[in-house]
Amino acid sequence: MTLKLDAHPTGRHFLQIPGPSPVPDRILRAMSLPTIDHRGPEFGALGLAVLSGIREVFQTRQPVVIYPSSGTGAWEAALANTLSPGDTVLMYETGQFAALWARLATRLGLRPEILAWDGEDAVLPQAPSWRRGVQAEMIEARLRRDSERTIKAVCVVHNETSTGVTSDVAAVRRAIDAAGHPALLMVDTISGLASADYRHDEWGVDVTISGSQKGLMLPPGIGFNALSPRALEASKTAGLPRSYWAWDEIVEMNRDGYWPYTPNTNLLYGLHESLAMLKEEGLPQVFARHQRWAGGVRAAVTAWGLPIQCADPAVYSPVLTGVITPPGVDADALRQLIHQRFDLSLGTGLGKLKGRMFRIGHLGDSNDLTLLATLAGCEMGLKLAGVALAGSGVQAAMDFFGKQS
Amino acid sequence: MTLKLDAHPTGRHFLQIPGPSPVPDRILRAMSLPTIDHRGPEFGALGLAVLSGIREVFQTRQPVVIYPSSGTGAWEAALANTLSPGDTVLMYETGQFAALWARLATRLGLRPEILAWDGEDAVLPQAPSWRRGVQAEMIEARLRRDSERTIKAVCVVHNETSTGVTSDVAAVRRAIDAAGHPALLMVDTISGLASADYRHDEWGVDVTISGSQKGLMLPPGIGFNALSPRALEASKTAGLPRSYWAWDEIVEMNRDGYWPYTPNTNLLYGLHESLAMLKEEGLPQVFARHQRWAGGVRAAVTAWGLPIQCADPAVYSPVLTGVITPPGVDADALRQLIHQRFDLSLGTGLGKLKGRMFRIGHLGDSNDLTLLATLAGCEMGLKLAGVALAGSGVQAAMDFFGKQS
Amino acid sequence: MTLKLDAHPTGRHFLQIPGPSPVPDRILRAMSLPTIDHRGPEFGALGLAVLSGIREVFQTRQPVVIYPSSGTGAWEAALANTLSPGDTVLMYETGQFAALWARLATRLGLRPEILAWDGEDAVLPQAPSWRRGVQAEMIEARLRRDSERTIKAVCVVHNETSTGVTSDVAAVRRAIDAAGHPALLMVDTISGLASADYRHDEWGVDVTISGSQKGLMLPPGIGFNALSPRALEASKTAGLPRSYWAWDEIVEMNRDGYWPYTPNTNLLYGLHESLAMLKEEGLPQVFARHQRWAGGVRAAVTAWGLPIQCADPAVYSPVLTGVITPPGVDADALRQLIHQRFDLSLGTGLGKLKGRMFRIGHLGDSNDLTLLATLAGCEMGLKLAGVALAGSGVQAAMDFFGKQS
Amino acid sequence: MTLKLDAHPTGRHFLQIPGPSPVPDRILRAMSLPTIDHRGPEFGALGLAVLSGIREVFQTRQPVVIYPSSGTGAWEAALANTLSPGDTVLMYETGQFAALWARLATRLGLRPEILAWDGEDAVLPQAPSWRRGVQAEMIEARLRRDSERTIKAVCVVHNETSTGVTSDVAAVRRAIDAAGHPALLMVDTISGLASADYRHDEWGVDVTISGSQKGLMLPPGIGFNALSPRALEASKTAGLPRSYWAWDEIVEMNRDGYWPYTPNTNLLYGLHESLAMLKEEGLPQVFARHQRWAGGVRAAVTAWGLPIQCADPAVYSPVLTGVITPPGVDADALRQLIHQRFDLSLGTGLGKLKGRMFRIGHLGDSNDLTLLATLAGCEMGLKLAGVALAGSGVQAAMDFFGKQS
Repeated sequence: MTLKLDAHPTGRHFLQIPGPSPVPDRILRAMSLPTIDHRGPEFGALGLAVLSGIREVFQTRQPVVIYPSSGTGAWEAALANTLSPGDTVLMYETGQFAALWARLATRLGLRPEILAWDGEDAVLPQAPSWRRGVQAEMIEARLRRDSERTIKAVCVVHNETSTGVTSDVAAVRRAIDAAGHPALLMVDTISGLASADYRHDEWGVDVTISGSQKGLMLPPGIGFNALSPRALEASKTAGLPRSYWAWDEIVEMNRDGYWPYTPNTNLLYGLHESLAMLKEEGLPQVFARHQRWAGGVRAAVTAWGLPIQCADPAVYSPVLTGVITPPGVDADALRQLIHQRFDLSLGTGLGKLKGRMFRIGHLGDSNDLTLLATLAGCEMGLKLAGVALAGSGVQAAMDFFGKQS
Repeated sequence: MTLKLDAHPTGRHFLQIPGPSPVPDRILRAMSLPTIDHRGPEFGALGLAVLSGIREVFQTRQPVVIYPSSGTGAWEAALANTLSPGDTVLMYETGQFAALWARLATRLGLRPEILAWDGEDAVLPQAPSWRRGVQAEMIEARLRRDSERTIKAVCVVHNETSTGVTSDVAAVRRAIDAAGHPALLMVDTISGLASADYRHDEWGVDVTISGSQKGLMLPPGIGFNALSPRALEASKTAGLPRSYWAWDEIVEMNRDGYWPYTPNTNLLYGLHESLAMLKEEGLPQVFARHQRWAGGVRAAVTAWGLPIQCADPAVYSPVLTGVITPPGVDADALRQLIHQRFDLSLGTGLGKLKGRMFRIGHLGDSNDLTLLATLAGCEMGLKLAGVALAGSGVQAAMDFFGKQS
Repeated sequence: MTLKLDAHPTGRHFLQIPGPSPVPDRILRAMSLPTIDHRGPEFGALGLAVLSGIREVFQTRQPVVIYPSSGTGAWEAALANTLSPGDTVLMYETGQFAALWARLATRLGLRPEILAWDGEDAVLPQAPSWRRGVQAEMIEARLRRDSERTIKAVCVVHNETSTGVTSDVAAVRRAIDAAGHPALLMVDTISGLASADYRHDEWGVDVTISGSQKGLMLPPGIGFNALSPRALEASKTAGLPRSYWAWDEIVEMNRDGYWPYTPNTNLLYGLHESLAMLKEEGLPQVFARHQRWAGGVRAAVTAWGLPIQCADPAVYSPVLTGVITPPGVDADALRQLIHQRFDLSLGTGLGKLKGRMFRIGHLGDSNDLTLLATLAGCEMGLKLAGVALAGSGVQAAMDFFGKQS
Repeated sequence: MTLKLDAHPTGRHFLQIPGPSPVPDRILRAMSLPTIDHRGPEFGALGLAVLSGIREVFQTRQPVVIYPSSGTGAWEAALANTLSPGDTVLMYETGQFAALWARLATRLGLRPEILAWDGEDAVLPQAPSWRRGVQAEMIEARLRRDSERTIKAVCVVHNETSTGVTSDVAAVRRAIDAAGHPALLMVDTISGLASADYRHDEWGVDVTISGSQKGLMLPPGIGFNALSPRALEASKTAGLPRSYWAWDEIVEMNRDGYWPYTPNTNLLYGLHESLAMLKEEGLPQVFARHQRWAGGVRAAVTAWGLPIQCADPAVYSPVLTGVITPPGVDADALRQLIHQRFDLSLGTGLGKLKGRMFRIGHLGDSNDLTLLATLAGCEMGLKLAGVALAGSGVQAAMDFFGKQS
C-alpha cells in the first residue's frame, strides 16, 4: 500500500503506445467531478448528451450502445447479440487483434473461419498478412462459394493496433454485396475511432466495435457497439445467451438517457468532455491532424532506414506506426532501454512479431513537439542499442513538421 | 454539448442514495493521475498491490477477479464461469436485486428456482419477504428434497440494496452443509462490501460478487468475483460460453499484476487509494462506523413514527435504511420535492415498493454532520409534503450522535 | 514531510468560519490548470477578463487593483498609495479587524485617531462598540471639528469579520459630505464582498479593500483595492514610500491585461471561475441567498436563547453570526470539542472577546443542508458542554428553511 | 466570461520560459485540497512542516519568512526590514532584474549606487555587464573607498533570470569581509533556488530573496526572505515603514506554525508537496540534473552557431540559457512564430536586450525529452525565420543526452 503511483523521475512520462493514449487534463478534470445519482434528472441529461454526441463520431444515425467494459467486452457483445452457438463467422487476420477476436469467437462457441493473405513477404516471411490490409476480393470469393449461407458474419479490423495497418471497410461492404451474401458485417475500430475517418452508416457496417482509450483520449473502461437495423433484427433471434451485453434493454432505456444497470458515471463525464473537444476542433480537422502526425513519424522511420510494418502505403495507419527492427536487435530490449533512460513507453511487438518490431502511437493528447520528443527518444535509444541508422529521423521529422502547418 | 455537469445551485450536492456513494476527494484526485501503459512495469506493481489489498477486504486468501464492469457484470461472471445451460439455481428473493439476479440467470439459459418468505406482513402485504433476511431453514429444506442434486448453486444477497435488509450468510452455509448438498454458494455483497462485515473464507462462500461504487467509495465501473477452490474447479467443466468473464486467463495473468485485456487503469488508481484509506482506518473501525451511522438514522426514522423497511432488528443494514411512507404519500413525489428544495438525492422504492418507500444511504464519504443534514432534508421535506410526524427525527439523531462517540 | 494534509476521519470537513470559506470544486479544478506564461497572449485575455469581471462585483467603473497578497496587504496598499508620513486618519473601531487596521496604520507612520461607540452594553460591557455598526454622526461631528483638515482619510469596516456586524457605508459618505470635509473614504469589505451588497461607486468610496477567501470563495492569496478618481489623484502626491503596492504601474499595465510583476496565475484562474459563477447566479440572487442563510442561523441562535453578537438588527451581517456564550462557558473549549467530535471548524472570539463568543460563517460553498449540519454540530456541542439551551436551534432553522424557498 | 483557459490546440503546451516553470501534476493536485482554517490545529502542523523544509532548501538554520506575494514583494521586504530612508545600497547590474531591484530601492526612498562591468563586448556592446557575473573585486574596491560607511547593504543577483548568468556569491562575501565593511549582503536567488546550489549560511548571506514559481515548481504567489542574525538585528532599528513585510510578528508566530495574517493556504499545500519531491530526489541530485540539462541545451545552441548570452563558461546558469539572435533577426518575432506553430513559450529579451535574444528555461517539471522537444521547436522556428544555422542543435543535444545518463 506504499506504492507511489506518480513516481516517474521528473517531467511528464511520454505514453506513446497505440493506446491507452495520453489523456488531456481537461478530461482528467472532468472525470474528477463528484459522482451523481444514475437515476436522477441530471444524469438523464448527461446520458442523452453523450449518446447523441457519440453517434456523430461513429457517423451514424443508429443507436450506439455504451458498455462499462474494455474493448474486448464490446467484441463479445457484438457476437453475442447477433449470433447463435455453432455459427460460422468469416474473420480476416490482419494482425494480433484480429487473431484474438477469432479466439474469443471460439470461446463463445462460434466457428471462426480465418482468411489471410499468404503472398510472400521478404521482410517478415512469418506474417505476410500482418503487413497489409484486408483483401476484399478474398472475402468476396469465399462468400460466393458459401452457397448454403453458413457464414453468418464477416469480421474485420479497421485499424490494426498490432501493426499500424488499416483496411478498406467500404471495399469489404462492396465485396459482400457483390457476392449477394446476407452475412452481417462487423468491424473493430477500437483504435481507429476519432482518429481515422470512419463511417458506420455510409460504409454499411452492421456492428462497429470501439473503446474509450484511443482516439477518444479517455482512460480505458468504456466499450461501444454501433448498430444497424439489420443487426438489431438479428439480435431478436440470435441464440447465444447474454444479459450484460444484451442490446434490447439498453437501447430501450437509453431513450431517456438512462441504463438498465449502473453506468460508469465518471468515465461518462470524461466522454462528455471528449465529445466537446472533438466537436470544437471538428472531425475533419481531427482526422487531418492524425494524418499529418503519421506523415512526420513515417518520415523519421524512413530516414532511419528501418522498414515500416505496413507494406502498403495506401493503408498506412494515421494512429500508429509499426517499426521493424533489424535482425538481431531485440525490439523489447530496445523498448526497455528507452523506457529506463528516457521515460518513454512504446508499444511492444505482439504475437508473431514479438521482439521484431515496436509501435509508436501518434494519438491522444499529443502535438508536433511531443512526437519529436518521442522520435528523439527512439533515435537515442536505437543508437545506444548499437543500431546503425541510415540518417536522422528526428531531422527528417523536423523537416516534415516545419514545412507543413 | 453545452450541458453543465457540475451545476447544482450552491454548496455540495448530498448524494445519500445507497450507492453510488459520495466519493472522497482523495479518491477523485488519485483517479486523475495520468493513465499509464497497462503492459509496463509500473502497472504490474499497481496490479499486484490492488489484487493483494482487495483480498483483505473480502477477508479471503483466494483469488479475487477484478472486471471493468458494473456489479451486474460480476453477477453474470459468477454464473457463467461455474454453470452450464439448463442448470437449476436456487435463489432467495430478499428484494429487487435478488429478483433481478434471477432474471439475469434466466437470460443466460439457467433455471432459477425462487424461494421467498410468505408469512403475513401487515405493513407491506405485497412483499413480506422484502422485509426480512434469507430464511436459511427454507434453503436447507429445499436442498434436502433435492435428492437428484439438480440444484447446482444457491444464490443469496448479503445486503439488499433495495430494502436495507441483510442476511446471515454463515447460516446459509450451515444450511447447505446440514443438507449435505454439493451446490455452490454464491453471494452478492455489492452494497455490503467494505461497509458491513463480510467473510468470504470463514463463511465458506464459493463466489462473492461485489462492485466499486458502494463501500469502496469509488465511482461505478469495477465488478468483483471472489473465488473458492471449489468454484475454480467448477469453472473447468462449466458449459456456459464465456470469454470476457472467463476466470482462467485473468487469474493466470494476475499472478504478475496484469490482465489479459485492458483494465480500467484510472479506476484502479482509485481502488488503490480506497484500499489505503480502509487500511489506515482498519476494517473493524469501518464496520463500527457504519453501524453507528445506521443507529442514528434509525433513531430518526423511529422518532418520525415511520416504519423501517427491515422488520427484523437482527438484520438491519449498516449501509442503508428503507423508510416506508404512510399510505397515500407518494414516496417518489416526496423524493423529488426534497431534491429540488434541498439538493439531496435519496434512493427510490424499487419494483414492488415503487412509491411506497425511500432509502437513505449512510455510506461513502459521510460523517455525523452530513447524515444530520440528510435527515434534516428528509424531515423538512416530509413536513412540506404534509406528512404528520410523531416527533423530530433530527432531534433523535442528535441525541444519538451526541451521546455516542 | 510525512504530514497528511487531507486526513480528516471520514466525510468532508465543515469549514464554517467566516473565511477562508469552503471553496467550490469548480474553483479548485480551475486552479489546477497548468500555469501559463504571464507575458504571453493567453494571459492578457485572462487578465482583461478578470479585471473586467471584478469591477462588476465591486459595482464600480473605476480600476480595481489585484495584488498577490492577503487582505492585510490590501489594507497597507490603500494607505501607502494615498497618504504621507504623519497623516492623521480617522478610524472607527467596530471590532478586532478595525483595531488591527489602525495598528497597521501606526506601523506605517500614520496617526490613527479612533472613534468608538461608548454607550452601555449589558451583555458585553467591555466592548459596546463591537456590537453595533459605525455611528456616522460621530464621524460627522469629528470632521466638523477638524477645521484645519488634518484628517486625511476616514477608514471604516463594512462587514466586521470579528463580530458579524455591518456598517452603513452610504451614511458615512453622507456624513463626510455633510461636514464638507475633503478626507478620503476608505472601506474594508474583505469579508463582505460578493456576499453582502456593496456599491463602490454609488456609495462614493475612494478606496475599497477586499480579499479572495470570503465571498469570492477562493483560497486566500489575492488582495484588492478598488479606486476612485480622487484616490488616484491623491496617489500622485502621497509621500509614503511604496513599490510593490504602487497603483501607477499596475493600473498602466492592466490596460492590456498584464502586471508589472508576476501575478499569481493559478489563483487568477480561480477568480475567473468565481466571477463566472457569480454572474451565472446574479449578484442580487447571491446577496439574497446570504441574507436567507443568515436568517436561518439567527433563528437557531435565538431558539437556543443565546445572545447574537450584533445588537442592532438593522446591521446583522449576512456573512457570519457571532454567538455569545453564557458566562462561565469557555467558547474556545466549546469550539475545540465541536472540532474534535464533529469535524466542524467555527470562528474564535478575537481580541476583547476571546473565549466569550464564537462565530458561525455562512458563506462560500454552502447550502441549507450544510448550514443545518453546522447548527446540529453546534447544538450537540453546546449540550455536551453542559450549556442549558432554551430550545432547539436546529428545529428553528428547519422551520425557517422549510418555509422559505 | 466565456474565455477558455485551457484551450491550446492539442497536446500539452511547452512552457519553457525561465519561470513560472512547468508545475508537476503532483503539486497541482496537492493545491486542489480543500482550504482549511488557518487558525486550526491541522494548519499549525502544515506551517511547521513547510517552515522546516524550506530551510533545508536555502541551506540555512535561520528563519525563512514566507510571504503571500510575488518575488518582487520579497525584494521589497528585504530592504524595508533592514534599511532606513536615504540609506545607500550598493547594487551590481548583472541584468534586467538587478536593474529593476535598484529601481524598487529608489521608489522606497533608498539611494542605490550601481556597479557594472564596463569592459568591451563585441557581441553585445550595449550591455557588456549583462554577459558576465558579479565582479567581486569591484565591490571590494568600492567598499574600501567607503570610509564613512555610508553603504548599508550590498545587493547582488545570484542567477540572473534575464540573461542566464550566475554570480559567485561566496566571492562577494569574501570581498565585503576583505574590505572590512559592515554592509549587509542581500542576494536575489529567485530563479536559482532549488535548481542551482545555493548556501545561505555557508556563504554568509544576510537576506536571501526567492520565490515559488521557479525551482520550487509552484505557481507564482509565494515570496521568501531567508534571514541572518545580523539582518534580524538590523531590523530592530531600520527606519523604513513596514507592516505587511515586517519580520518580527511573522517570525514570532511562525514558532507555532501560524502567521499573523491569512497565509495562502493552497500554495502552502503545493510547497509541502514540492519540498517532499525535492527531499525524495535529494538536493545534490536536483542540482546535477539541472547542470546536465543546461549542458544539453548549450550543446544545441553551440551547434546552431549562435552566441550564448553568458560569455563566461564559469558562470553558466543551470536554470536557463540566453540565446543571442543574429543581427537583423527579431527575437520576439521568432518567439511569436514558434509559439503559434509549435505551442512553445520561450522567454523574451528584456530591457536593453529586447529583440536581440530569447531565453530557454530548463527547470521545473521537465526531462530530456521535453528539452529535446523544446530545442526542436526552436530549431524549426529558426529555420522558418530564415536563420542560417551552422548545424543541428537537436542532433548535438541528442548526442549529449544519449551519452550522459
